[in-house]
Amino acid sequence: MIRLAFLALLFSFIVTTNADDKVDDTSVYSVHPIGHVEKYNGKTAVVLDQQYLPGLLRLEDFSHVWVIWWFDQNDTPEMREILQVHPRRDSRNPLSGVFATRAPVRPNLIGLSLCRIMAVNENIVEIDGIDAFDGTTVLDLKPYIPSMESIPAAKTPKRL
Amino acid sequence: MIRLAFLALLFSFIVTTNADDKVDDTSVYSVHPIGHVEKYNGKTAVVLDQQYLPGLLRLEDFSHVWVIWWFDQNDTPEMREILQVHPRRDSRNPLSGVFATRAPVRPNLIGLSLCRIMAVNENIVEIDGIDAFDGTTVLDLKPYIPSMESIPAAKTPKRL
Repeated sequence: MIRLAFLALLFSFIVTTNADDKVDDTSVYSVHPIGHVEKYNGKTAVVLDQQYLPGLLRLEDFSHVWVIWWFDQNDTPEMREILQVHPRRDSRNPLSGVFATRAPVRPNLIGLSLCRIMAVNENIVEIDGIDAFDGTTVLDLKPYIPSMESIPAAKTPKRL
Repeated sequence: MIRLAFLALLFSFIVTTNADDKVDDTSVYSVHPIGHVEKYNGKTAVVLDQQYLPGLLRLEDFSHVWVIWWFDQNDTPEMREILQVHPRRDSRNPLSGVFATRAPVRPNLIGLSLCRIMAVNENIVEIDGIDAFDGTTVLDLKPYIPSMESIPAAKTPKRL
């Protein structure tokens, strides 16, 4: 009987601990594919899942679109722990924090590419190209706003 | 001719296979805060969690940074299902797909803001401002690359 009471106490402790963990888990958010990059016949497109087709309404009014994608191939705990790299994997470029590079390793594996819109047909957004593999997960599309996002004189360091 | 037919058959098979893959795609990826927006004494900063401090190395070499953040306050299934809005919540702007707007409702609640870097001190990146609430979750920082991301003549529709 005492053993049972002890087990009950232990169990309640474990449950409490888990509940505490869950409080911390609220700082994890989920993202899911809205579509994928597809490359075919020399063309490149973002092909949205059919359910997201309504989200493309009037995208053709813009000339450029931000494609926000996922570095699928690097989604391991080890890759997500890398915080410094040599830009462009060239050791002549000084070691830099990943937040000072566009490297495909970082804590959250979000890729960001500005693309020219060639055509929008149904759920297919044809773009001029993208530095992402065929089949790459796409998370979001956003129109490019030059009045806010075009800063020709922005400063960058020289890199090889 | 036979070779062409074979290629066509192969291509149709690939396309079919890809299409099938897409229908079944229920992948979910996890993202977590690397820091938060903080507003204080008329200043605005991205304050990184201490563990990510190494990731900021050499960010000060850039004048502008992309802040990728999470629309915390809209993280409900209902908000994530909205696919069309009137831009800027103004009904005089024609209904548009969320992927043709920067609206804070979308399937993946990723916000994207270009900010000027005022200073980088330890884990604090002071910026000129951001259209995000105090305390907003930040997911990633990326340097702004004007040679690729500054397109003054990019086309946009007129909106109120």
